[in-house]
Amino acid sequence: MLQQYPSRLLEKAVQEFSKLPGIGRKTALRLVLYLLRQDADDVNQFAEAVATMKREVKFCKVCHNISDTELCPICSDSRRDASTVCVVENIQDVMAVENTQQFHGLYHVLGGLISPMDGIAPSDLEIDSLVERVAQGGVKEVILALSSTMEGDTTNFYIFRKLASYEVKISIIARGIAVGNELEYTDEVTLGRSILNRTPFEGK
Amino acid sequence: MLQQYPSRLLEKAVQEFSKLPGIGRKTALRLVLYLLRQDADDVNQFAEAVATMKREVKFCKVCHNISDTELCPICSDSRRDASTVCVVENIQDVMAVENTQQFHGLYHVLGGLISPMDGIAPSDLEIDSLVERVAQGGVKEVILALSSTMEGDTTNFYIFRKLASYEVKISIIARGIAVGNELEYTDEVTLGRSILNRTPFEGK
Repeated sequence: MLQQYPSRLLEKAVQEFSKLPGIGRKTALRLVLYLLRQDADDVNQFAEAVATMKREVKFCKVCHNISDTELCPICSDSRRDASTVCVVENIQDVMAVENTQQFHGLYHVLGGLISPMDGIAPSDLEIDSLVERVAQGGVKEVILALSSTMEGDTTNFYIFRKLASYEVKISIIARGIAVGNELEYTDEVTLGRSILNRTPFEGK
Repeated sequence: MLQQYPSRLLEKAVQEFSKLPGIGRKTALRLVLYLLRQDADDVNQFAEAVATMKREVKFCKVCHNISDTELCPICSDSRRDASTVCVVENIQDVMAVENTQQFHGLYHVLGGLISPMDGIAPSDLEIDSLVERVAQGGVKEVILALSSTMEGDTTNFYIFRKLASYEVKISIIARGIAVGNELEYTDEVTLGRSILNRTPFEGK
């Protein structure tokens, strides 16, 4: 589609928006024209929030989650169990696990998964810092909570080997049939694993 | 969904993004985390483009289309036919008509449609300035190119009455079956109109 923008300033803003993932030029134009209709203060607030976030946000020096402070709110919460560390791929996954309200330990954010195809090596991730955290003692259990993909499995195995020489329990989140899913439509690998990893029925 | 943001700066940026139309909190988070991974320069460029656009963009004093200059590129193009004015609702519609490459006159952007339900009165729109433009002479034809909705029809009729006392031809874009559409699935109002407004078949 031929696009004649009546203003270069508009075009520039549309270009910037359409760099965002999942935002095409048409959506970008709609968003920009929406902003154009808002008060100048609101638009400045929008631009400021984005720039300030990028400029001032920190990464927790222990778990690498994002944070406004050197130590994130989770790592600095003394009520949480510092002996259990849940290893996740990224910040969204921390939020996803937190939302379950089932985990009360600390996290370790890798910042990605090992993926030779995408050129992501173990050294690009926060794996050495995880090993160091375990080496310092105090961590009794490491829970691997990575995606159930080839990259996730590779990363799980790599971390497992790296931690093998330390006295730490390594566990992995359960894979099985998602709650609410029908057996008939579950893929056979998942179904097979869920039979192998069956748990005692508690009759609750 | 309970959302625990690890950073207030992040939360603020997500909040700002989720004010945009069609962007929910989950998409907003994805966009913000994407920006967080980009270079600081790129993020500043994004924020700057939005703020600058809002601060510096102008509206053409003749047709009210957005523009970087007092007179928009279309109004200041001497090759265009200044005697034909196409009345549209908004800036996107100017771009839509321009993209057809079938219109070589000038535009008049109303900035909306009359809608008592939404509290939009004729005085909120650029209708008086259209009448003034016609009153000044030089305009031979006004083409009404508004949406085929109740608001569009109301606005068409209002403009028609306002211009009735001037010697100017008023036309309306053709309503009919969209190119590529099947007759069977066309609504009866459209189909009825397309029969009433049939045009001579040119055998091309």
